[in-house]
Amino acid sequence: MAQPLRPRPLPRVLLLTLIPTACWLLLRPLLDPSPPLPALHASVGFSIFALLGALYLVPALGSTFVHANLKGRDLLKTYDDPIPESLGLVCASIYTLLLILFIPFAFSDFFNSQQKSTNKPREGLVINEFPHHQLAVYLSSLLSLLMATMLGFLDDVFDIRWRHKLPIPIIASIPLLMVYYSERGATDVVVPIPLRWLLGSLLNLGPLYYVYMSLLSTFCTNSINILAGINGSEVSQALVIALSVILNDLLYLPWPVGFRIPLYLLGRGAEVEVGGVWGAGMAYGSRVLVERHLLSLYFMLPLAGVCAGFMYHNWYPARVFPGDTLCYVTGMAFAVVGIQAHFSKTLLLFFLPQIFNFVLSCPQLFGLVPCPRHRVPRFDAETGLLYPSTALFKEHAPSRLASLALRVLAALGFVRLTEDPRTGEITETTNLTILNVFLLRLGPMREDSLVKVLIASQVAGSVFAFVVRYGLAWLVYDGNRR
Amino acid sequence: MAQPLRPRPLPRVLLLTLIPTACWLLLRPLLDPSPPLPALHASVGFSIFALLGALYLVPALGSTFVHANLKGRDLLKTYDDPIPESLGLVCASIYTLLLILFIPFAFSDFFNSQQKSTNKPREGLVINEFPHHQLAVYLSSLLSLLMATMLGFLDDVFDIRWRHKLPIPIIASIPLLMVYYSERGATDVVVPIPLRWLLGSLLNLGPLYYVYMSLLSTFCTNSINILAGINGSEVSQALVIALSVILNDLLYLPWPVGFRIPLYLLGRGAEVEVGGVWGAGMAYGSRVLVERHLLSLYFMLPLAGVCAGFMYHNWYPARVFPGDTLCYVTGMAFAVVGIQAHFSKTLLLFFLPQIFNFVLSCPQLFGLVPCPRHRVPRFDAETGLLYPSTALFKEHAPSRLASLALRVLAALGFVRLTEDPRTGEITETTNLTILNVFLLRLGPMREDSLVKVLIASQVAGSVFAFVVRYGLAWLVYDGNRR
Repeated sequence: MAQPLRPRPLPRVLLLTLIPTACWLLLRPLLDPSPPLPALHASVGFSIFALLGALYLVPALGSTFVHANLKGRDLLKTYDDPIPESLGLVCASIYTLLLILFIPFAFSDFFNSQQKSTNKPREGLVINEFPHHQLAVYLSSLLSLLMATMLGFLDDVFDIRWRHKLPIPIIASIPLLMVYYSERGATDVVVPIPLRWLLGSLLNLGPLYYVYMSLLSTFCTNSINILAGINGSEVSQALVIALSVILNDLLYLPWPVGFRIPLYLLGRGAEVEVGGVWGAGMAYGSRVLVERHLLSLYFMLPLAGVCAGFMYHNWYPARVFPGDTLCYVTGMAFAVVGIQAHFSKTLLLFFLPQIFNFVLSCPQLFGLVPCPRHRVPRFDAETGLLYPSTALFKEHAPSRLASLALRVLAALGFVRLTEDPRTGEITETTNLTILNVFLLRLGPMREDSLVKVLIASQVAGSVFAFVVRYGLAWLVYDGNRR
Repeated sequence: MAQPLRPRPLPRVLLLTLIPTACWLLLRPLLDPSPPLPALHASVGFSIFALLGALYLVPALGSTFVHANLKGRDLLKTYDDPIPESLGLVCASIYTLLLILFIPFAFSDFFNSQQKSTNKPREGLVINEFPHHQLAVYLSSLLSLLMATMLGFLDDVFDIRWRHKLPIPIIASIPLLMVYYSERGATDVVVPIPLRWLLGSLLNLGPLYYVYMSLLSTFCTNSINILAGINGSEVSQALVIALSVILNDLLYLPWPVGFRIPLYLLGRGAEVEVGGVWGAGMAYGSRVLVERHLLSLYFMLPLAGVCAGFMYHNWYPARVFPGDTLCYVTGMAFAVVGIQAHFSKTLLLFFLPQIFNFVLSCPQLFGLVPCPRHRVPRFDAETGLLYPSTALFKEHAPSRLASLALRVLAALGFVRLTEDPRTGEITETTNLTILNVFLLRLGPMREDSLVKVLIASQVAGSVFAFVVRYGLAWLVYDGNRR
């Protein structure tokens, strides 16, 4: 670990192979015959540029951030070198800029007129009239992402207090809500079968739907932000979730017929109808569903690109830190696609580790158990391993409710308690985070092993989510359209 | 000048009278009978909130900015107290947040359905189908404003070099251009009569129109940014231009008939037709023109509000500095309305002092004449007055071209030169800014007098602009529609 701060080197072969690939993907839709989903080609091309942008700009701008006093010490290392902080801003800037540049590809009927002029029978996704509504949806999503970027960076610069920054994602979600309201978006949800005798099959939530949407953005954002503290943790969560959403979106695209076989294996094959391009995939011929999941892909592909690029530099030992900006932008991006493409319940299934971490953290977040400034695992410089960090009951003994909660968690194996040998009262507990749970269950480990365990749990969560969504959802929902 | 840094006090009567007024304006459109332009009522209400927001938040957040190292010394004062810098960020945040909250008022057909339910004959502006196109225009404008805010703040934090930041407004204008392109916006301009024999009456600029749009945003932004340096200069320019644009917009609204009399005095009365609400004003019954100027009002009214509120604290002796953020946001706002509401030529007429300052600055901006780090007037602590600042030809004598330019400017009275008595070569020149020109022509004066002179010149420029636009434009254009 001689020179930990020298930027990680980048193989030149990457640049030489990826740039031509990306350019080809951007140009391909212009060539005849145009592919079935031209905008998706361009989106993949932009995502490669997102990856390259993050790979090359993040190390290049690191010193500028240190110079502007945006730097921090790595708490879990032996060295004291200042690490550039808030580099998530670079990712967010690349991401939003590429999304803006993508607008003509997604919404111009350029490709369409190109097809017209060749006088061929049309195939694939052809949008005949200008999709003003979708453009408004896209722009409001962009506005929310930009506000999340802005607010995340303000948080990094002004260091807003924990309790004050909880509602920030609500502010960032206002553009979404406003446009949703102005366009009189639907506010009803499909009721699960077991509850239909009570609520009917469609329930109009009205204003509560807006509360739901802003809470979703708050949850997506903050739940990533509190599962943080070790190198690569924030960005790896974002990457796995983005890839899960992408995989889920791909299921709805009009693929060639052969693709439907794996769907059959998931137990839902009996209902799949054979048909034209609109009849393939899980969309069952619904153009609206395909368009929604395309929109989701347009937002998720470049996000996966920047996250992958950033992770390269944020990996143990980290050369750069993401800051709150990255958590805000990625969280908001997930909320945006969940809301705009109407799969928020599926989305939440991909957040299982975050939900677990959030629920586990509640006693500390809401003041039942003391919450130290940092809850990251404790680093032991001699062994180089991470151990569970603890919170002490210094000022007063735990309340009866706190004792009960902690003893239940201890019985489940999620915390380790230290008790006063005389009174039997709890004097110390390991901090209530999923990272400490991993260290408790699996033993002390190196920082890079811990982040790998976190990634594995995130992947396992996503696999479980797919099983639940496509294997079990028919138990409580009759349709498959949401 | 005992305690220059104590925030300027705010009369409580302001809060007590303005809040009820603003609330009334927001509620008024909901009451029966609904006014002819309900959204305009709401916009005025929001503008009052913008004023109050700037008045109260700017001093409240000053210390936070100083704490985050966003501070500067006032170069033209005797004291050394740190003044909070970049408070334009607060203005920009209030402004964009209010514009976002305004979306439902501008685009929901809530008021419309409200009217329907009362079964009354409709009057005024009733939009029957959802204006998706206008929503996209509005959202893309907001995106550009947010990007300008973001980039302005990044400039303040990272202190980007002068030459590097020139193209920043082009980046911020990308959302505008992209949406304009996606929606296949018109790219043709009306040709002045004297040139029609050559170009025809409509000229399609094609891609050049996009270059024009991004150059317009660059000009609007940077021209305000370089006419800076004394307390209140940036924000007062923005305020006068915003008020001029508002006045111009008001001419196009469907006013009651009596309003047309002053138009007659401007020499164009003979063509005004008497008619319904759509026939009044300069719109001559064109619904499109009314809607464009309404859009412009929605952006300009709250801008005038925040600028007025900010000016109160930025006025001599300044308690806060605007930073680049304010110049970026206001400049971008002007560019946005000029482009989206299609009156960019009229807009440029309101920039006469900025155009003069820019043209005058060119020899220094492009390296013909040495350009010191600061070109602000020189402060003399003994007299308390400002004197023209100078640039020295230290390293080499002026080139022949530079000498010629400077001698022409000196003959026009815009610079004062110092010559070597032996060789007759120019050794020193006053800096090429409009502020130094004022000090040359009117003699040394206090900082607050100078900013008043600047405001007076801006107002005079706007008066002249109105005379040219409505008194002389018929000489070169036959219609009055642009």
